[in-house]
Amino acid sequence: MQLHQYESLLDFTKKVFIKMGCPEADADTAADVLLAADLRGIDSHGVARLSSYIRLWEQGRIKARPKITVVHETPSTGVIDGGSGLGMVVAPQAMQLAIDKAAQVGTGWVAVKNSNHYGIAGYHVMQALEHDMIGISMTNASPLVVPTFSRERMLGTNPIAVAFPANEEPPFVADFATTTAAYGKLELLQFKNEQAPLGWIQDSEGNPSRDPHSISNGGGLLPLGSDREHGSHKGYCLGAMVDIFSAVLPGANYGPWVPPYVTFLDKKTELVGKGIGHFFGALRVDAFRPAEEFKSHMDQWIRRFRQAAPVDAEDKVLIPGDPERECEKQRLTEGIPLLHPVAADLSAIAEKFGLVL
Amino acid sequence: MQLHQYESLLDFTKKVFIKMGCPEADADTAADVLLAADLRGIDSHGVARLSSYIRLWEQGRIKARPKITVVHETPSTGVIDGGSGLGMVVAPQAMQLAIDKAAQVGTGWVAVKNSNHYGIAGYHVMQALEHDMIGISMTNASPLVVPTFSRERMLGTNPIAVAFPANEEPPFVADFATTTAAYGKLELLQFKNEQAPLGWIQDSEGNPSRDPHSISNGGGLLPLGSDREHGSHKGYCLGAMVDIFSAVLPGANYGPWVPPYVTFLDKKTELVGKGIGHFFGALRVDAFRPAEEFKSHMDQWIRRFRQAAPVDAEDKVLIPGDPERECEKQRLTEGIPLLHPVAADLSAIAEKFGLVL
Repeated sequence: MQLHQYESLLDFTKKVFIKMGCPEADADTAADVLLAADLRGIDSHGVARLSSYIRLWEQGRIKARPKITVVHETPSTGVIDGGSGLGMVVAPQAMQLAIDKAAQVGTGWVAVKNSNHYGIAGYHVMQALEHDMIGISMTNASPLVVPTFSRERMLGTNPIAVAFPANEEPPFVADFATTTAAYGKLELLQFKNEQAPLGWIQDSEGNPSRDPHSISNGGGLLPLGSDREHGSHKGYCLGAMVDIFSAVLPGANYGPWVPPYVTFLDKKTELVGKGIGHFFGALRVDAFRPAEEFKSHMDQWIRRFRQAAPVDAEDKVLIPGDPERECEKQRLTEGIPLLHPVAADLSAIAEKFGLVL
Repeated sequence: MQLHQYESLLDFTKKVFIKMGCPEADADTAADVLLAADLRGIDSHGVARLSSYIRLWEQGRIKARPKITVVHETPSTGVIDGGSGLGMVVAPQAMQLAIDKAAQVGTGWVAVKNSNHYGIAGYHVMQALEHDMIGISMTNASPLVVPTFSRERMLGTNPIAVAFPANEEPPFVADFATTTAAYGKLELLQFKNEQAPLGWIQDSEGNPSRDPHSISNGGGLLPLGSDREHGSHKGYCLGAMVDIFSAVLPGANYGPWVPPYVTFLDKKTELVGKGIGHFFGALRVDAFRPAEEFKSHMDQWIRRFRQAAPVDAEDKVLIPGDPERECEKQRLTEGIPLLHPVAADLSAIAEKFGLVL
C-alpha cells in the first residue's frame, strides 16, 4: 500500500488527460470526478481505472475531443449525444443542463447516449446541492449481472445516486449499485484471492458460487436481494429501470448489447444504439415547498435517524453519505492509499507519457 | 377459500364507499384501485383492507368528502393537499396532474401530503401508459422497517412503481416494496402460523427472527438486502429516498412520525407534517425520442430478456408485470379467491351497511 497526496494525484491525473489530448478544462473536470472516488473511498472507480480509460482511448472508443451536442429538448427534458467522450466530461455537462432546466420550470431531466463510464454516480448528484436542488443520476454498464432465474449476464451493476440538501446537517447522498455487491468489491477479492460471501455471485451454470474469479468465467453478479426468496426480482427491477432510463430513452446500447468496459468480455458486433447511456435529474426544492423549510425538515429527518436505537451500541445508524464523508476528511489530510497493482499501473502510465508521479 | 366474481366484488366495494359518504365518482375510482390489487394477485392490498379503511374513517382519519387542493405549482411540479381523503381517490388526481404537466413541458412531478394508504403503487403508474408516458409512483407507510444497524422501526415498506410503455409487447410494470418481503407476505404467514425465511425480519432486540408475529411485538421488517453483507444499506437508502420524496418534499409526516395504518402501533401525538405522503412522476416519451422508436426498442428489450438463458428450463426469465398480468387474466374469468377471514370481514361489512355481498 502506498500513500499519495490528493493534490499530487489530481495533478498527475489531469496531466494524463491532457496527454491524451483533452482540452485543459475537460482534463480538470475528468480528474476532479475521478479523484472524488479515491477521496470518498470508492477505490475501484478512481485512479485504478485510469489505465482502462487509456486502453479505450487507444482503441478509439473514447474520444479526447468529443463533440457533445444536445440533440433534442423540451422545457423540462433534454437528450445529449456524448460524442464518445469520457463519461466524466459528458456527465457534468448533462447534469448542468438538468439544473438549468430545473431553474426554469421546476425540474430538469437529461438522458445521454454515446458516452462512456462516468465515474461515481454520487459525484454528479452533488452538483445539484449548491443550487438547493435534489440531484438524481444513474448509468448503465458492462453486462455482468444475471436477472432472477437467468444464467446469462444481461445487465450492468447500474448504480443509482440521489442527493438531498439539508441545512445544518450534511446532505443525504446515496450512491449504490443495484446488485448485492458492487463489481469493485469483487475485484478486490480477486486481487486478494479471497472468497466472496454466498449471495453475491453465481457460476456460469447458475449455481451459488463464492469464487470471485467465476465472474470472468461466465458467472454473474446477483441483483440486490441475492435470490428470489430474498427479493432478487426487486434488484433486477431496479437494474432494469436504470437500463431503460439510461439507454432505451436516449438511444444508447442496453442490456447485453452494452459495450463492455471489462477486458474479459468481447465487444458486441451488433449494436442497438450509441455507446453507453446515463440519466440525470434535478428538482428545485422550492418548486415544492420553500427551500429553508425543506432543509430544516431534512435536518430533523437526519437527526432522528441518527438517534434510532442501534442493535449494537458501537454501530450507530448511519445517514447515506456518512462513510464517504468520513473517508474524504481522512484522506484529504492523510493521503490516498493505493494498492500496489494500482501504483504500478500509474507508474507505467507516467513512463508512457513522460510524466512524474 | 371462497371464489368471488370480479364484477360483484367491485360493485360491493363501490357501494361500501358510497355508504361511507363518498361521491359516486370517487367510490368508482377507489373501488377500481382496490380491486386492481385483488385482480393482480396482491391480495394484501385489495378488499382485505376494506375493513381497515372503514376503521380509519370511523376514527375520523379518513374523510369521505375531502377537499383536495393544489397548494403549489410550477410548470413541471405540483403539491397536493389530499384533505385526509382516501389515498385511492387522491392518488389518481395527483397522477393526472403529473400527466397534464408532462403534456405541457415534457415531465410532471407531483408530491402529495395529507393523504392515506393509496392501494397498489402499480395502479397509478399504469395511468401514464395510455398517453405514451413513463409513470413513477411511490408512497411512505407505517413505520415497520428497521434501517441497517437499527432495532427501532423508522420507515415503512415504502414501495416504488415504474411503468414503461412498449409497442407489441405488454408494458414493463415494476411495483415493489423496498424491503426484502412486503408486509402482506408476513400477514399471510401470521394467518397460517408459518415461519418466515431468515432475512425477512428481526425481533425487538435486533436478532434474526423467523416468527412472523415478532413484527407485532416490537420486531421489524428488514430492508431489501436483509443484512449489511448483502446490501441492506441499499434497501435502507431506497426506503429513505421514498420517504423524503413522498413526505419531506410535500410536507407530510415522515419516518417514525408516519400515522400508522396497522392497529398494533399507536398513533403518534407529535406530528411533523400532514397525513402520509406520495410522489408521482410522468415523463412524455417523445420529450426524449419519438414514442414509436422508444416503444419498438422496448419490444426488443423485453424479447431479449425473455430469451435470456434460464438456470432452470422451467423457470423462464420474467419481465416486471408478467406475474400480475397472468393473475389478472385468470381471475377475471375464474374469480377472485378470498381467504376465510377476509370473506368474514366482508360479510360483517355487508351487515353493517345493509348490503348484500
